Amino acid sequence: MFPLLRAARQIPGSEAPEAATVPVWFMRQAGRSLPEYREVRGEGTILHVIADTDRATEITLQPVRRYGVDAAILYSDIVTPVWAVGFGIDIVPGVGPMCEHPFESAADLERLRPLEPDIDLPYQAETIKNVVTDGGVPLIGFAGGPFTLASYLVEGRPSRTYTKVKALMFGQPDLWHQLCERISDIAIATLRAQVAAGASMVQLFDSWAGALRPEHYTEFVLPHATRILHEVADLGVPRTHFGINTGELLPLMADAGADVIGVDWRTPLSVARQRTGGRVALQGNLDPALTTGTWDVMQREVRRVLADNGGNPGHIFNLGHGVMPESDPGLLKQVVELVHEEGTC
Amino acid sequence: MFPLLRAARQIPGSEAPEAATVPVWFMRQAGRSLPEYREVRGEGTILHVIADTDRATEITLQPVRRYGVDAAILYSDIVTPVWAVGFGIDIVPGVGPMCEHPFESAADLERLRPLEPDIDLPYQAETIKNVVTDGGVPLIGFAGGPFTLASYLVEGRPSRTYTKVKALMFGQPDLWHQLCERISDIAIATLRAQVAAGASMVQLFDSWAGALRPEHYTEFVLPHATRILHEVADLGVPRTHFGINTGELLPLMADAGADVIGVDWRTPLSVARQRTGGRVALQGNLDPALTTGTWDVMQREVRRVLADNGGNPGHIFNLGHGVMPESDPGLLKQVVELVHEEGTC
Repeated sequence: MFPLLRAARQIPGSEAPEAATVPVWFMRQAGRSLPEYREVRGEGTILHVIADTDRATEITLQPVRRYGVDAAILYSDIVTPVWAVGFGIDIVPGVGPMCEHPFESAADLERLRPLEPDIDLPYQAETIKNVVTDGGVPLIGFAGGPFTLASYLVEGRPSRTYTKVKALMFGQPDLWHQLCERISDIAIATLRAQVAAGASMVQLFDSWAGALRPEHYTEFVLPHATRILHEVADLGVPRTHFGINTGELLPLMADAGADVIGVDWRTPLSVARQRTGGRVALQGNLDPALTTGTWDVMQREVRRVLADNGGNPGHIFNLGHGVMPESDPGLLKQVVELVHEEGTC
Repeated sequence: MFPLLRAARQIPGSEAPEAATVPVWFMRQAGRSLPEYREVRGEGTILHVIADTDRATEITLQPVRRYGVDAAILYSDIVTPVWAVGFGIDIVPGVGPMCEHPFESAADLERLRPLEPDIDLPYQAETIKNVVTDGGVPLIGFAGGPFTLASYLVEGRPSRTYTKVKALMFGQPDLWHQLCERISDIAIATLRAQVAAGASMVQLFDSWAGALRPEHYTEFVLPHATRILHEVADLGVPRTHFGINTGELLPLMADAGADVIGVDWRTPLSVARQRTGGRVALQGNLDPALTTGTWDVMQREVRRVLADNGGNPGHIFNLGHGVMPESDPGLLKQVVELVHEEGTC
């Protein structure tokens, strides 16, 4: 058994001695923070790099080699599947996902036809197979959660206030739910294909769902998140559910059917565990800003997170959000070593 | 007694029948959402409008007239005092506060000399006096909280990740605390001058403090917020402490010495009340995104917030964050009427 899967299942180290370390990986561990990434990245949209299996395989493996992390995560993006079905979306360097024609009305549902993974994104399965063969660590697949993906489609670009997507959600709830059904169908197809190709775990990134209060999350998002997670339950791989600013949503996100909840750095793991009643494992939750600092401070903060977890076997060490372009890869490597040395499970 | 001050003191309506309505005002109620504001606003930086007492008085009063809110809030900005002492900061339309030379080292402390309100911002007292004379409602003064103001000074512009300000905070804690002391001195001088001029209540806007986990907030910000709030305690006006994404910080923000805690829309008031043990009044917390929508939805959501408060006398109705440029003034007026009609205290 791998430490990642042991922790995801909340199995104490004593019951799986071969996997008795605290697993650690980093959201966005592949990418701009790594010089070796910038070397193979090239110009233009990353969607073309994602669709190039040789480069995508190499990029997926780079952080595994450099850091000794306990998981690879597929080099892709949450908008890849909607790009692949031809919604009309691009990832603009320095900005993020942008749509020339954002989602506005029922007619736009047609631009979200069902995903046929073998035809629409054959490169995904190929990259996963390459990584699983070469990597020696479990691979995490992922998809975008309903609110987050809808926010890009409706806003047409990254937003701070989510005004347009919330206007659709509150103002046209039927259309909202239809949109989420399409997004969910695509997410389910994506995740199932990833697991079929060899992913050992999946993560639903509803990164921006924390923009909603619990009652709105319950009404507008939870049913869809629940369907996605339940429709991959039979695959037998652990499912992580992640968002930032989700302190108040953690019990709901667990209820959706997750095995692991991603916790941002704002909520101590001990608080998150209390709120979720111990029924899920936790992933997190170092403040990503620390990755641009010094080892002295980092050391203290890694130990703070480990102490806050208190040796609970259900802990996957990670940042509370993604690695940043300015993050220091040297520090991240030291984090992995320290967690492996001092973490208890 | 005014309803605002009754609620801030958690006095039941039955004990102050003349003030037995739920008070309501809106953060950023004066500003871009109002056509009458755009008429008097003119071009260039708003700092010059703030320093023009005629226009600042008019703008402060516009929402009072239009909405019938229970408070005026001084038309100003949290960076006005540091601009006034010559730090070198501007508010760029469409962007926000920007510094050509951000705060970098101990030498920059000199750019934050003590504020002499009578000399540095005489227009502030004059505007307040005008409003208090003309307005018929209590006026709220305010200052920027330590983390939020430091973030503008150190980042040099609005940030999503607060990487630079956190790097300073974690990496140079002595310099961080010196910076916060300067900021706090300026905040204290600002607030004292506002109350001397006639403000009936003050609010400390540490809007971005929720970017910190509780342990970091406790170590790096709480001592300064506490000093600010305590050094205005003798003035006898209620003190509100506000930030977004502060679900985990609410008890600490109350401990700092606040009478009222501003709660963003993510945390239900009932949860916030539980976390703060009922020792403070609460301000909030409608999702600002609703202000661009329909009255049908708004009505339901206003009632949801009122129901969530459950008739507790310590409730000042507000949005969970500021009015947006796209907000519909007609809707906001209806919110005020509904809260006044149906709110119980």
